Amino acid sequence: MSKLTNKKAVVLFSGGLDSTVCLYWAINKGYNCEILSFDYGQKHKREILSVKKIAKKLNLKPNIIKLNLPWLKVSSLVDKCKKLPISARAEIGKKLSIPSTYVPARNLMFASIAVSFAESIGAEAIVLGPNVLDYSGYPDCRPKFYEQLSKAVAQGCERKVKILTPIIKLSKSEIVKLGKKLKAPVEDTWSCYAGGIKPCGKCDSCKLREKGFE
Amino acid sequence: MSKLTNKKAVVLFSGGLDSTVCLYWAINKGYNCEILSFDYGQKHKREILSVKKIAKKLNLKPNIIKLNLPWLKVSSLVDKCKKLPISARAEIGKKLSIPSTYVPARNLMFASIAVSFAESIGAEAIVLGPNVLDYSGYPDCRPKFYEQLSKAVAQGCERKVKILTPIIKLSKSEIVKLGKKLKAPVEDTWSCYAGGIKPCGKCDSCKLREKGFE
Repeated sequence: MSKLTNKKAVVLFSGGLDSTVCLYWAINKGYNCEILSFDYGQKHKREILSVKKIAKKLNLKPNIIKLNLPWLKVSSLVDKCKKLPISARAEIGKKLSIPSTYVPARNLMFASIAVSFAESIGAEAIVLGPNVLDYSGYPDCRPKFYEQLSKAVAQGCERKVKILTPIIKLSKSEIVKLGKKLKAPVEDTWSCYAGGIKPCGKCDSCKLREKGFE
Repeated sequence: MSKLTNKKAVVLFSGGLDSTVCLYWAINKGYNCEILSFDYGQKHKREILSVKKIAKKLNLKPNIIKLNLPWLKVSSLVDKCKKLPISARAEIGKKLSIPSTYVPARNLMFASIAVSFAESIGAEAIVLGPNVLDYSGYPDCRPKFYEQLSKAVAQGCERKVKILTPIIKLSKSEIVKLGKKLKAPVEDTWSCYAGGIKPCGKCDSCKLREKGFE
């Protein structure tokens, strides 16, 4: 893991498996990384413990931004009164409607804030971990979205900021393999959507994670 | 000003002249408007008083979101230790570098958060007031940026959300004229970038405003 370069990147880091692999990927590519994480009222705020644990291992100080956006309660990932769907979407390729866990424009907001951070510190890239093959029907996980967003950023920003999505086309098992190759501490990551102390084993995120490790 | 339609819009509203005209434009088009404003550490936080005053006139409750993004201090619009430039850019068409008041990716962030709000409440559009002819060299005021962003939003969101920029190609005097036509309370708006009780009359924003009223 070389730190001999001057190139910087802002890594969107949730403490989950996917973004942990992305963080280790970016470090492996020689980026000096700034970690950007969000507390947006998600039920699984516990993931921030994983953010801190993994950042500490890397001797990095995470930038944790509090977003108080009351309307996000439309999502079952945020509103404690709404039940999480039970593994309805874990089958690859299954075509279903967008799940209730969808948080409106979340990845657009997070990427935009990351771009602002990157511009401010002169980072040449933002790195984030959406994934299309295993994805749970979220429109903001599609490669086309990031292609268009890159074009918008190129038009709207002072500096050039690349949007890197290194695992977007990998399967969950390929992500696990890549994580192991990069010596990412996958055991410290948190994927479960529910707010419990242990993973529920039933939500989409748990099911997809389980598939990956199988 | 008809409110007989069901169509909703989220209006990015700073309390300044341009966004006030946009708000009255949206109401005039029959939109039921939600006002979205930001406290992002701007020196001219006083503009939020104008937000409240104008919202009250319209019997609307503004949604004021606090964004605590420490890196925005790279901008002289935010960092109290950095001096504002003195009317360096008030001449239309003058080609200069991007001014120190540029806040990295501000409009991208604000528009993204507005899109999230719009999706959540089922609003069909967001309305914002960038302006290209009188613009002060900000890359995120260019029509091309909004065209690309619209495409990204179309790819990344569950619902269709239009991005409307009604005054983007108007001159400052045309904006003032439109405001008067729509009976917008231009006297209640706030444009000055400095943090004072009265407009400084020297910053780009004051100079451009002055030009518009002339």
